[in-house]
Amino acid sequence: MRENSDGQDNGPTAALLIIGNEILSGRTKDANLPFIAEKLGTIGIRMMEVRVVPDIEAEIVNALNALRQRYRYVFTTGGIGPTHDDITAESIAKAFDVPLIRHPEAYRRLKAHYDANGLEFNAARLRMANTPEGAELIDNPVSVAPGFRIGNVHVMAGVPKIMQAMLEGILPTLQGGRPIKSRCVVCNLPEGTVADALGRIQKEFPGVDIGSYPSYSKEGFGISLVLRGIDEDELDAVARRVADMISELGGTPRFQNQDGTRAV
Amino acid sequence: MRENSDGQDNGPTAALLIIGNEILSGRTKDANLPFIAEKLGTIGIRMMEVRVVPDIEAEIVNALNALRQRYRYVFTTGGIGPTHDDITAESIAKAFDVPLIRHPEAYRRLKAHYDANGLEFNAARLRMANTPEGAELIDNPVSVAPGFRIGNVHVMAGVPKIMQAMLEGILPTLQGGRPIKSRCVVCNLPEGTVADALGRIQKEFPGVDIGSYPSYSKEGFGISLVLRGIDEDELDAVARRVADMISELGGTPRFQNQDGTRAV
Repeated sequence: MRENSDGQDNGPTAALLIIGNEILSGRTKDANLPFIAEKLGTIGIRMMEVRVVPDIEAEIVNALNALRQRYRYVFTTGGIGPTHDDITAESIAKAFDVPLIRHPEAYRRLKAHYDANGLEFNAARLRMANTPEGAELIDNPVSVAPGFRIGNVHVMAGVPKIMQAMLEGILPTLQGGRPIKSRCVVCNLPEGTVADALGRIQKEFPGVDIGSYPSYSKEGFGISLVLRGIDEDELDAVARRVADMISELGGTPRFQNQDGTRAV
Repeated sequence: MRENSDGQDNGPTAALLIIGNEILSGRTKDANLPFIAEKLGTIGIRMMEVRVVPDIEAEIVNALNALRQRYRYVFTTGGIGPTHDDITAESIAKAFDVPLIRHPEAYRRLKAHYDANGLEFNAARLRMANTPEGAELIDNPVSVAPGFRIGNVHVMAGVPKIMQAMLEGILPTLQGGRPIKSRCVVCNLPEGTVADALGRIQKEFPGVDIGSYPSYSKEGFGISLVLRGIDEDELDAVARRVADMISELGGTPRFQNQDGTRAV
């Protein structure tokens, strides 16, 4: 079972703040949370909370201040472009109570880019050179306009391709923990049949986080039992226990890789 | 521009609380937010905030209490199954400071279902008959085990097919506002080229929420300018203004339907 603290046992924690009306309206489906959560998991950082807020300064400020005080790392996506609805940099400066400044290196990179492409470095584009005072840039190898880090907050683009490139640059700078590993056992029994025995296994192995996820397919009901933790020997032991439990209850357990393919 | 209040101009507001370690780990991609947000939009209810929290009681209680005091409606997904990691009903009872009770009608429905299918109505399955005292059931036409409503909080399943069926039953019970409509104008100009003029149009039409979303495809950079509001005449007027602006800046505007197809 996970604790929401940043303790030695569970490793460092993270939160994600998704900024954007387009996510809240349902028009755009967020693809960044799964990517960030999985990448952080590989270096032992656990995603503990996500918030989605609209393009309203007070909402961004309040959510950011709640999250950055509570988790080791905070990541934000969205709102760092040149248009009027991109207000992330100003909002984060306000959250940290520091001035918004024109970052010289961000200015230099953007100017070189627009000069090379024959585009006007106009007022809107200049906004992308602004960061809170004291911020360090996060490289954008896709479209130049940088993200930035201030304190424990990493500000990234919302476009998945750009966000992913930024995150690759950030990952080596983070202090991770033991990588989070998982095992998955699937079976054809209904959840209610395995629930009591599964709860007992969870109690016996508090260091492993056991989740039960029902699915509905043409072949009928099924469940994926997902075990997550940092000790691979313990995970294997729990996976065997879960599989034995399924067999005892008359089901057929299968070990599955996390990408959904059958483990060999 | 949207306000985070529940005022007459902007109509009723909503928040979504997504409960589940599987979403935070990145293993499961949430598909419920876009569905719920779009459905609510059609009846004039605006999604203003989303939080994703783990299967930890204190996290669910705190997030729920923050959201239910602030927004007209709150929806939750996940954690209402029979397994040990399904703790939503208990957590919501605690948030409302009422006892968790065995709901007689939920018990009756589940018992009839398990009797008819020759399945044992064991301790784990009995948990699905529990609700906070004072809750009303939300029908589950897919797999029987009901959701429930207490106060302004609607507790639904996490499995999309079941959640969608539950939401269909809930929608007629909500007090909506004027439906939120949208227009989308796409063009092949870079965001930074249209940003200044677009910001001026936004200032001129504060009743329309204008968003700019860049995209990257084989044909190069593009932007979708999405206009959202409740007055269709105003939306059409703003769409024409945006299209004229694009033409003046040397671009080619196209009106696009919200499903991505080209409007005729």
